[in-house]
Parts: sequence; structure tokens; C-alpha cells
Amino acid sequence: MLTQFGLSATREGLYDITAQVADAVTASGVSDGIAVVYCPHTTAAITINESYDPDVARDLVRGLDAAFPDRADFAHAEGNSAAHLRASAVGESVTVIVEGGQLVLGTWQGIYFCEFDPPRPARKVYVKVLAG
Amino acid sequence: MLTQFGLSATREGLYDITAQVADAVTASGVSDGIAVVYCPHTTAAITINESYDPDVARDLVRGLDAAFPDRADFAHAEGNSAAHLRASAVGESVTVIVEGGQLVLGTWQGIYFCEFDPPRPARKVYVKVLAG
Amino acid sequence: MLTQFGLSATREGLYDITAQVADAVTASGVSDGIAVVYCPHTTAAITINESYDPDVARDLVRGLDAAFPDRADFAHAEGNSAAHLRASAVGESVTVIVEGGQLVLGTWQGIYFCEFDPPRPARKVYVKVLAG
Repeated sequence: MLTQFGLSATREGLYDITAQVADAVTASGVSDGIAVVYCPHTTAAITINESYDPDVARDLVRGLDAAFPDRADFAHAEGNSAAHLRASAVGESVTVIVEGGQLVLGTWQGIYFCEFDPPRPARKVYVKVLAG
Repeated sequence: MLTQFGLSATREGLYDITAQVADAVTASGVSDGIAVVYCPHTTAAITINESYDPDVARDLVRGLDAAFPDRADFAHAEGNSAAHLRASAVGESVTVIVEGGQLVLGTWQGIYFCEFDPPRPARKVYVKVLAG
Repeated sequence: MLTQFGLSATREGLYDITAQVADAVTASGVSDGIAVVYCPHTTAAITINESYDPDVARDLVRGLDAAFPDRADFAHAEGNSAAHLRASAVGESVTVIVEGGQLVLGTWQGIYFCEFDPPRPARKVYVKVLAG
């Protein structure tokens, strides 16, 4: 079963989607296996990082902006190549282990949708849970 | 079943392999599950990004070259450490959801082999499809 | 079955964990499928890269430090936002294909735990093997 949920990404930044992913695992009925969390967009990404201090998520955006700035030699007419680049550097999916019907995350870990080309009121996330 | 296909990567850049991956999914006979697309090389990578405007792929290469340039303090004797670095930043694999025997990609998404150390006339890509 | 093993990461750098992951695959009894290698920490990551010349691993650390340095505008009070950033750029997991009970790695590939916030004497790695 493939689950999807929507997201309104009004600003550049990280959006905590851990609860929605956990709900998708519950809905799948899978007790043990993996959950693949997938972003079907090309200027956004999925990552796992600290969810305790919100400053970490803000610093991640600052650091990605600095490492992958807009550049004069970018040719793409839409002007958002830096967002495409940050998406490929972070990655379009994460895979999380599932045990006893729960996501096996580290103590400080949360799952984040990363928006690099706001505003995007109708982003989507797919979750596929495999038993095994 | 593990499928593989070859690729001649004559220049640095992104090579669209979406059709070959879709063929591997068809050959697997799997209707619902995931496809793991894997690069067995250490100076190349796999990513998912926009396949509509080819300028995006070109800009990705420019941005990766700028973020991860060759450096005077690199020690590896082959002189291609920047290519190894870009490979680890982008990642050696992607995982795509499969439904109804089809890859579940976003509207603008394609799957790319990323060559960072050309020319490489005999690159390989592995595809493993799991049902579930 | 979920396997885990520990690691003492006393310095920043890459630690070859290929043998431990291969042992987890053997312990799982799975002949064909995939192995998900997962890092439950937020200032460390997992990558696959060259394991033949140790200079490559050292150069990867140098290149990541240069691309994602500490920044004056980072707000996180612990002062280790650069390590969180490198973790999200490299990624918290890798997925490796398994065939005949063996990891299907390229000739020069090894699996690495990447420590970005040392010293950490009690790091953990999870391995989940799925048949299919």
C-alpha cells in the first residue's frame, strides 16, 4: 500500500513530518520492515536530523544556502537551479526501519520535508511500507 | 532478481536512465514494491531530478563542481578526490516506489546516472526490485 | 530481524564497517534482497566510497569540512551545526543489494560510518535485511 499526504510549504525550510510518516506506518498494518519516505518534487527533499532544537533545522537551511548558492553561470530559465541542486545534495527519499509497528529513529531524530523553492502550497509526500 | 545495464559515460554530467530502470521493473515482474537503483562505482552517483529542461542537469554539474572543487590538500594519488566527494554528497543509490508495474515518479522527475570522473566507457548500474 | 553494532568514534573521519554489515547479512539468513544500513545519530552519517586507498576517506572529510564549515550565523547553542549539516548532505543510511547471502558492492567500494562530531565512544549502527 502506498500512502500519501499533502503539505503547504510557504517558506524555505524544514517541515517535521515524523507524525504523518508514523501514521502511514500504522495505516499499512506492517509490523516489521522498512518505510520509504519519498518526495515527488525536484526542488524539495527529505532528510532526517535533530528535531529537539528547532535552531538545527534553521541552521541546516543556512548552511545549504551557503554551500549551494545561486550562480551567474546557471542556465535554467526558471532561475531556481540552486533549489534543484540542494534537492539532489540532500536526496529525494529516506528509508527508515520499522519494528513492532513503530519507526526506529534515534533519540534526537525527526523526519523532515525540505522546501527549497517556496511558496509551494500543494507539496506531496509518498510513504511506502514493506514488510520483511 | 538483480538486473544490470551498461553505460558509456564519455563526459562529466548526468545521464537519464529512467527508461532502463523502467525496463528492469517490467523484467522483474513485480507489480507493487520498490526499485533500488545502485551505482557500483566510487566516482559516480545516482540522483533524481528534473528531466524536462536539460539545463537543470547541466546546472547541477556546475553547482556540484563549485561546492566540491579539487583542493591542494587532497592526498589521494589518483587526483580525483573531488569526484569521490561529489559521489558521496549525491549518493550511490536511489529508491523508487513501484505501483502497478510502473515507477512512481513525480511529474518532472527523471532518474540520472551522474559521472564525475570521465571518460568511463564501461559504467554499470544495478537495479533490484522488491515486491511488498 | 534488526541487527545493531557499536562503534567508538574517537576522531572526525570515516570508519570502515563493511565487515560488520556483511556479518549482519549472514546472521539474517537472507540470501537475496537488500540491506539497509542506518545511523540513528544526527551528527554522523553512512556512505559508500573507495576502501582501497585510505587517502580517499581522509580527502572526503577535508572536502566536507570545506563545503560545510562552521558559520557565524548558526544559532544552535551546542555549536555543532556544521556536523548536523554534513550528516544531512551525506545521508543517514545506505541501501545495498544482497545476492547469494553476499553484499553486492563494486570492486573498490566499502561501507563507511562518518563521524562529524567527535569524540563519540558509543555510536550505534542498525542493519535491517529484507528478503525479496
